Order: sequence, then structure tokens, then C-alpha cells
Amino acid sequence: MATLKIYADRRSQPTRAVILFCKVAKQSTNNYCRVNGIAFEEVETKLFSNDLQTPEYYAINPLKKLPAIAHGEFTLFESHSILMYLACAYHVPDHWYPTDLCKRAKLQSVLDWHHTNLRAGAMGYLVNTILAPFFGEAPNLEGAAECERKLVESFSTIEKVWLKGDAKFLLGNDKPSIADLSLVSEIMQLHMLSEEERCRMIGPYKKVQHWIANVKEETNPHFDEVHKYLFDVIASFKQNA
Amino acid sequence: MATLKIYADRRSQPTRAVILFCKVAKQSTNNYCRVNGIAFEEVETKLFSNDLQTPEYYAINPLKKLPAIAHGEFTLFESHSILMYLACAYHVPDHWYPTDLCKRAKLQSVLDWHHTNLRAGAMGYLVNTILAPFFGEAPNLEGAAECERKLVESFSTIEKVWLKGDAKFLLGNDKPSIADLSLVSEIMQLHMLSEEERCRMIGPYKKVQHWIANVKEETNPHFDEVHKYLFDVIASFKQNA
Repeated sequence: MATLKIYADRRSQPTRAVILFCKVAKQSTNNYCRVNGIAFEEVETKLFSNDLQTPEYYAINPLKKLPAIAHGEFTLFESHSILMYLACAYHVPDHWYPTDLCKRAKLQSVLDWHHTNLRAGAMGYLVNTILAPFFGEAPNLEGAAECERKLVESFSTIEKVWLKGDAKFLLGNDKPSIADLSLVSEIMQLHMLSEEERCRMIGPYKKVQHWIANVKEETNPHFDEVHKYLFDVIASFKQNA
Repeated sequence: MATLKIYADRRSQPTRAVILFCKVAKQSTNNYCRVNGIAFEEVETKLFSNDLQTPEYYAINPLKKLPAIAHGEFTLFESHSILMYLACAYHVPDHWYPTDLCKRAKLQSVLDWHHTNLRAGAMGYLVNTILAPFFGEAPNLEGAAECERKLVESFSTIEKVWLKGDAKFLLGNDKPSIADLSLVSEIMQLHMLSEEERCRMIGPYKKVQHWIANVKEETNPHFDEVHKYLFDVIASFKQNA
């Protein structure tokens, strides 16, 4: 199998989803057997830096965003596409990206929904508040309020629609899929906010919180390791605020 | 094969993409052979109406949006997921949704990109301008400007990244895929704007315009038939403006 390179900055939530997937996707769910991941080379590619502006990176991802992969000669960006590609290319256990057409289509609908709902709300809220200065702009309170509405509505949808009954994972599954990794990585980014602010939004959604804990438990110690850099950055960010 | 029902309002751009796909997907590209589509029952389900609020529709799509399908007992929403599901369930010609893993992953990346770029820009612009009154709100000029920026950037990306060389369709293909149908259906919605406004945005992108003409030509007479209702609504809308 050709070498897999992941162009990555672990502050990026879709990047973390891809890295976490590689670390856990070939593992048995048996806790004693957490050793075999998908082998990859992590190519550090800093957000907000010239790393994204080089001709070399343009050849990988002309949109200058993260994450992207190069698998031998084949290059790809957009994290959901990468997750699907890797699940198929590496023949990982079926629960990550089911081969059954109906199960796969349902999983796909969660991933499609994510883009314009949970991601738009969560990322939009951060961009309109604490990330605004990084884009040379003032916080946009009206935009933030609109994104908070979308984010809270997304938590409600996860709780009422995507988490069925008492199942541990999305779509009534007892094992995680690529959608669980993608959505939880997104939600983890909200730790950049003050605890009060984050709890105001996610606090009422107990099933969502329980599901996040399930994803962490199922994928640890890798989950914590992949999120460590984000939490280091957040600690430094909050200290300097 | 079980009956396929499409819950549809042809004013909705993702709905049109699904209907158009059903009408053309099993056809030969030979113009003399445009007869065999995927058979479906179109269940008229009006946007902004109680049609989306019934318990029956909640069982199909609890998010109360369009389009959705019921294929026998199986239900699905999110248009990209529906397109992929139908392409696989009906074994349509490969160019619509390639079985080759790398080709499929690239196509998937266009579809993923669409959500937060072209769709966010185009739909966002309409919502912030002429559709605002339907949501009981005043036009939001600042929001519209931000969406126009995103929309124009999306046209630029289609032209520079997704349309390669002189190929007729996205990703350098000589036959259309589900991504061509989805993206062009989205762009057609901009005919709701004044011609001056629409041309201000799309005018500079000649390759994009040429590609849209290719998709129309390749899928006509169905393209025009599927878009007829939208243009009737637009004519009435502009007359009353």
C-alpha cells in the first residue's frame, strides 16, 4: 500500500476527525487489542500560515484548507470524502462506513446534514466571536446569535433524530461510524469558549453529552491524545485573554 | 423494485436535482434513446406550507425539509445522499456516480464542498435579499454582501478547480455526474434575481456559463421541463414585484 500523508493542524476539527479515524479504525472494539491503526505520516501544516500558500500545497489542495491527504499519487481534500475514501481503501470494520446500501445512505445523510447545520452553527459562532480577531474583524454579535440558534437547533436534532433510543452511537448503532468522529470533533471545538458559554448551549442536551462521552470512551486513549494540542492551545489562549 | 416516492416542490433546487436525475440517469447519452428514466411518483409537498408539518411527513423527514424519498419502507432525506442512494440502487451508468474508489472520492469532495460554499453563498444571498419577506424578516444587506463574496468565490473555484481544461463537465469528465446536476440546479435558482444582479455575479465566469449550457444540453428536454415551474413562479414573482 502506498504511503499515506495527512496534511494536518490538530487545531482543525475535521483534521482531528481524520487523524482519530486512522488511529482507531482498524482496531477491534476489544479494549485489549487497540494497537493496529492505519499507518500515516502527519505533515504539519499550520492554519493561518504560509504552509497553506506554497505551490507544493496548492498541488495537494488548491482551496488552501485543511485537512488533505496524499495517498501515493492520489490527493484528496474535504474531510468527509477523506474518511469515506480511507474506510474503503483500508477495508476497515464495517461499522465505520457500512457497505449495506441503506445503512450507508443514512450515514451519508448525517454527514450531509452536518455541513449546513452543526458545522455552520459551531464554526460560525466561533468565527463571529473569539476567532474574529484572527480574521482581522470585530466580533459580530448579530451573526453570533444566528449561529447560536443554528447550533442549539443542531444539538436538538442530534438528540431527537440522530440518536435513537438508548443506542450508544448515531443512527441507533452500538459501534461508532465516521459520522460520530466528525460530529464529535466539531463539538469539541466549543471548548474554546468559556465554560459558561459552552454550557449555555450544550447543557440542556444530556443525550448529546452522553454520546460524546461514549465516543471518547470508545476511542481512548487516542481521543485524548488527538485533542491534547487543542486543549494546550485553549489553555494558553485563555491565559492570555 | 419497490415504488419510489419523491416528496417534492420544484421550487426547491435540491428537489429539482433529484427529479432531473431520475428522468435522465438511465438514459444512454445517445440522443435518440432518451426514454428510460427511473420510475417515481412525485408527491407534491409545498414549501412554506402545512405539507411539511404533518405527522405523515414527520415520519419521512423529521427535519421538515425537501426533498425526501420513500423507497418501499426505506426513507431518506438530504439530496446528495438521495442521489448516491438512487445511483447505487438503480445501477445507473457509471459516470453518474463512479464505482472506482478514487473517482468516487473526488466526486464526493465536490459534493461536500458544495454545502458550505456554492449552496451557502447562493441560498444565503437569496435568503438575505428577496426571500427575506417569506421568513418575516427585512433584507439583510451585510449578510447579502458576505454571501455574494462566498458565491463569487465559489464560481471562481468551479472555474479554476472543478472544471479542468476543456472538459464538458466537472472533474474533467465528458459525461455528467450527480455533482453536475446538484450544482447547476443550485445556480439556476439565481434566476430569481434581476438579470443585472445575476450577471454581476456570474457574468465574469465564462467557463461556468458554458458548463451550465452543457448540462442543459445533455439533459434536455428534461432540464427545461423540470425547471419550467420555477420559471413560471419567477415570472409571476417579478410581475408582482
